[in-house]
Amino acid sequence: MSMNHFKTLALTAALTALPVAAFAQDAPAPGFDEIGPYIMTTLLFLVGGFLVFWMAAGFAMLEAGLVRSKNVTTQLTKNMGLFSIAAIMYWLVGFNLMYPGDGWIMAGYVGPFFSITSLEPVGLAADAAALDYASVASDFFFQLMFCATTASIVSGTLAERIKLWPFLIFVVVLTGFIYPIEASWQWGGGWLSEAGFSDFAGSTLVHAAGGFAALAGAIVLGPRLGKYAKDGSVVAMPGSNLALATLGTFILWLGWFGFNGGSQLAAGTVGDITDVGRIFANTNMAAAAGALAALILTQVVYGKVDLTMVLNGALAGLVSITAGPLDPSLFGALWIGAVGGVIVVFTVPMLDKMKIDDVVGAIPVHLFAGFWGTLVVPVYTEGTSFVTQIIGFVSIGAFVFITSMIVWFILKATMGIRVDEESEINGLDVSELGMEAYPEFSKG
Amino acid sequence: MSMNHFKTLALTAALTALPVAAFAQDAPAPGFDEIGPYIMTTLLFLVGGFLVFWMAAGFAMLEAGLVRSKNVTTQLTKNMGLFSIAAIMYWLVGFNLMYPGDGWIMAGYVGPFFSITSLEPVGLAADAAALDYASVASDFFFQLMFCATTASIVSGTLAERIKLWPFLIFVVVLTGFIYPIEASWQWGGGWLSEAGFSDFAGSTLVHAAGGFAALAGAIVLGPRLGKYAKDGSVVAMPGSNLALATLGTFILWLGWFGFNGGSQLAAGTVGDITDVGRIFANTNMAAAAGALAALILTQVVYGKVDLTMVLNGALAGLVSITAGPLDPSLFGALWIGAVGGVIVVFTVPMLDKMKIDDVVGAIPVHLFAGFWGTLVVPVYTEGTSFVTQIIGFVSIGAFVFITSMIVWFILKATMGIRVDEESEINGLDVSELGMEAYPEFSKG
Amino acid sequence: MSMNHFKTLALTAALTALPVAAFAQDAPAPGFDEIGPYIMTTLLFLVGGFLVFWMAAGFAMLEAGLVRSKNVTTQLTKNMGLFSIAAIMYWLVGFNLMYPGDGWIMAGYVGPFFSITSLEPVGLAADAAALDYASVASDFFFQLMFCATTASIVSGTLAERIKLWPFLIFVVVLTGFIYPIEASWQWGGGWLSEAGFSDFAGSTLVHAAGGFAALAGAIVLGPRLGKYAKDGSVVAMPGSNLALATLGTFILWLGWFGFNGGSQLAAGTVGDITDVGRIFANTNMAAAAGALAALILTQVVYGKVDLTMVLNGALAGLVSITAGPLDPSLFGALWIGAVGGVIVVFTVPMLDKMKIDDVVGAIPVHLFAGFWGTLVVPVYTEGTSFVTQIIGFVSIGAFVFITSMIVWFILKATMGIRVDEESEINGLDVSELGMEAYPEFSKG
Repeated sequence: MSMNHFKTLALTAALTALPVAAFAQDAPAPGFDEIGPYIMTTLLFLVGGFLVFWMAAGFAMLEAGLVRSKNVTTQLTKNMGLFSIAAIMYWLVGFNLMYPGDGWIMAGYVGPFFSITSLEPVGLAADAAALDYASVASDFFFQLMFCATTASIVSGTLAERIKLWPFLIFVVVLTGFIYPIEASWQWGGGWLSEAGFSDFAGSTLVHAAGGFAALAGAIVLGPRLGKYAKDGSVVAMPGSNLALATLGTFILWLGWFGFNGGSQLAAGTVGDITDVGRIFANTNMAAAAGALAALILTQVVYGKVDLTMVLNGALAGLVSITAGPLDPSLFGALWIGAVGGVIVVFTVPMLDKMKIDDVVGAIPVHLFAGFWGTLVVPVYTEGTSFVTQIIGFVSIGAFVFITSMIVWFILKATMGIRVDEESEINGLDVSELGMEAYPEFSKG
Repeated sequence: MSMNHFKTLALTAALTALPVAAFAQDAPAPGFDEIGPYIMTTLLFLVGGFLVFWMAAGFAMLEAGLVRSKNVTTQLTKNMGLFSIAAIMYWLVGFNLMYPGDGWIMAGYVGPFFSITSLEPVGLAADAAALDYASVASDFFFQLMFCATTASIVSGTLAERIKLWPFLIFVVVLTGFIYPIEASWQWGGGWLSEAGFSDFAGSTLVHAAGGFAALAGAIVLGPRLGKYAKDGSVVAMPGSNLALATLGTFILWLGWFGFNGGSQLAAGTVGDITDVGRIFANTNMAAAAGALAALILTQVVYGKVDLTMVLNGALAGLVSITAGPLDPSLFGALWIGAVGGVIVVFTVPMLDKMKIDDVVGAIPVHLFAGFWGTLVVPVYTEGTSFVTQIIGFVSIGAFVFITSMIVWFILKATMGIRVDEESEINGLDVSELGMEAYPEFSKG
Repeated sequence: MSMNHFKTLALTAALTALPVAAFAQDAPAPGFDEIGPYIMTTLLFLVGGFLVFWMAAGFAMLEAGLVRSKNVTTQLTKNMGLFSIAAIMYWLVGFNLMYPGDGWIMAGYVGPFFSITSLEPVGLAADAAALDYASVASDFFFQLMFCATTASIVSGTLAERIKLWPFLIFVVVLTGFIYPIEASWQWGGGWLSEAGFSDFAGSTLVHAAGGFAALAGAIVLGPRLGKYAKDGSVVAMPGSNLALATLGTFILWLGWFGFNGGSQLAAGTVGDITDVGRIFANTNMAAAAGALAALILTQVVYGKVDLTMVLNGALAGLVSITAGPLDPSLFGALWIGAVGGVIVVFTVPMLDKMKIDDVVGAIPVHLFAGFWGTLVVPVYTEGTSFVTQIIGFVSIGAFVFITSMIVWFILKATMGIRVDEESEINGLDVSELGMEAYPEFSKG
């Protein structure tokens, strides 16, 4: 890389740094009274953001544990790849699409599309009058993690038979366009938020959206070879490492405190930080209730506790409370989460009956429990209605499902999205990557 | 679920929301000077709480790594189940039992027993006069994690031969009643705190208590088949995955910063946040010293370093400093933690001589090092005495041990607590759950 | 331990506690305006510190996943041991060496060398005039983690053939002396900082330094048996568990937010917390770009995506941005990180050609990308120059490399640093520790 290139970039940096001077530096320094809320909310975004980042590792471990060992390397690669793509696409396009400035107008698309500048100047002056509610970079960091989560949901469903590159290209479209557009309808101040739709941290906007994208993919892709026998029976294909799957669930549970708590979007007043506390307690309760409901229910229905259902029950409890983690009492969080756990136990076999092959159970957890969580909001939250909740869920579901379908079909028609039979039987790790995850351990 | 049911719940929510109006909304908004401490302490509970939550994952990984592969799924299920039960029982009963209001009076039992309301109104007004020191929900969230930790300690000791359901029922009693009652003696303002007992973050109240409950269970349950040969020798039953065990230890070490640091219970003054800093540094030092002591000692005594002892040495160092992580100098934390590590190396074989089969070494780590940590407090902390420390330890130990014994005997007499011989030999995963943790890997 | 010994220690504690009284307790209590910055910066050190602590677990998992299963227990033991040693040596010697008080004068060595006192009194009074920028204990806690990170880097390179104890002795010297001395040149206000060298969070001071120590060790130690065939070809020795390696990478990525963000060293003003936000966003972007660059490049160059390269690409992106995570725009972070990923893909085989056997790729990631990150700083950061950056890198590199070489040669000449051939073939776990990491799983 030549010195010239360095210089050009340095020049760009100097130009984009100009706004610094525009900030008033002469006004008397404001006290902590004025800047405390800005600092606390920025801190909330940063702590919440790193917790949601951690969920990317949770999905990776959950999925690596629930696929067969011959597909683990591929699954890990997809998870590393999808997060990296999300981080870049959300910056390049998504963030600007999602928050277009003055409301949801087309101008928003074309304005700061290729923002190569930074989000704000270094060493921002504490001119309270000019201050936003928090640092833009921290907000961007936090929002980015939600975009990545949407993509993480998709990778589990399509495991064990999708090619690496078509999947990654789908992620480009999902994180750069599909997610930002639908999320903008609500969080960007779009028509859904004006209509009174309520989705606090994204049961619909993130989880069901990811679930719909996964569902579209699962339909286009078809089930794994041998999953559904000719006599209609379902062949179990047990995950290779339940310790990893459990670790992944614990990671997701931990990260969810940031996911829901950070979505308060403020922490600098007594009311806000107290609300964050309520959200933490409710989120934890819903997860516990979902896990316990699945634990009891699998014992009752199948005569044996099913750990993978317990794990998915916890996750379904978390998804269920995500649309409204603030308003319910702890008892509310309990039954909302418990119903989420029940939904998983009953919808996992239902999907199998429909021959939709969801390797990790992401559709029951994120789509079905996401629907439940969205629907139940009006029970505790004033100013919301079941009708609006359904309208919001259906609109977003339809948009994500249809656009995803189109993308999946284009990918299928052009480059193909499925590995060939031999590769699937031998495992994607050998055929696609030439690298096994556990090369030394004999497989039974 | 019918609309009617929704309505009823919505009504309950509306009624319980009434107190919101009672908060003064007219007073001039207090500045950050007044609300800063409330916000910072709430934040401490939330960050400390999610770190202690993370310890649940640490115990799960530690135990999954130290049991044989045929029992891993069961161990993971127990850990998911026990945390979920703790989350619900501590809300339903425990928190109210532990903090009964005006001191430790029987009225406390019957007051808010079934509190289905939330802990405080949404959007709490910043009326400084009415403010507690922190959000109640955040405090509940933090305290809950300590209750769950007590249960986590028990599951490791009893691994590889206890039935799932009796274990979970024991957890119901432990987290709903036994732990909250004994913890109330000290942290609920009960007789032990009045007597001058000192246990900053719970070497006795949490760790030794968990250890006593585990000891009672181990005695009633008996050792694993073949663990103690007829000639008196001890048969090694090595853990199946030391990478997971090490991961679990690192997770616990990380979580312990929240466990001890959060137990300062305040972060909004210079003195408090500085003390939290001291606690972090001391906690880390004690863990490092415990690990290193065990590392050196196993080399000297056995001629080879024993990784499981190093891991348990770190944990014993952590338990040792937990009763008094604030007052010692860093040098104090070093020798207190190092003695903890030494205790583990010498008491693990001692337990085996007594034919008490503790699969993961939880009794040496949590009970014996917990005793040491409790006993050593008066060396650095003014106003404490060895006599009172011993009284506190013995009282709590006796209470937890006897009540646990009773519960274990009742469970044994009614439903049985131990799997049959064939199931134990085949592994609990196949016999109890029908699901292997590593189904593909050939076992040697 | 006798009562007498306790008494002596208690006396020491009492004496060292004297300074408490010296603090003014009479002044009017300062408001949050005055103490807010102190509290927020202390909090930054504590949260940043526990995140960097978590990196120790990340290195342990990454390395455990990239070595063969017969060496996993040894690798885990080294990681537990090195962190514990770093924690003690940095307190005993390092911290005092690194921050010698009034500049880099020899007096600093002899002053507080054996400080067995605590860092500051319990319950520090809020006398703003006397207040430092943050709690000393929290600062110590944070700085300690950087020292430990330097040692973590070394262990991966030398895996699979180095003896346990010589390695641990090297860590004693590295964390007690080598790292603190070179870090003092910059962060202790030494000659490099006066010369205008810029290394925000330690691309050179931590990462390249660790890399140079590893390089010296790799040269003295020689490659693993059979790694380089007589015909010049390189024999692949694939890691035993890529799921663990991926987990380790995610842990490191998470911890890096604390590593870089905490290095702002202040969070109590609008400018500071906003800068921390920028740093988080840039750090994430650089990691994503590094991972994606390696993902695309391995596809293009080798025809197949290589997961271990993707993981190391992410880490190289992180190392690259570490010297200057604040000033670049997000676009800057992207290309800086991407170049880091490219560097890894091309230098891993280069090292192999030189028959330097780096088991996990730590030298490309930490030394080569560390050089790149240090070199590129002047593009975005005013007041820095390429010449000074190179001088700083070369000075630190030469110092660490030469001192490390001397230590390695002394260790080789005295106790020997390499296991014998038979032990290496059988694996260090059996020969050195007598304990396998996965004793039940058949090896293929």
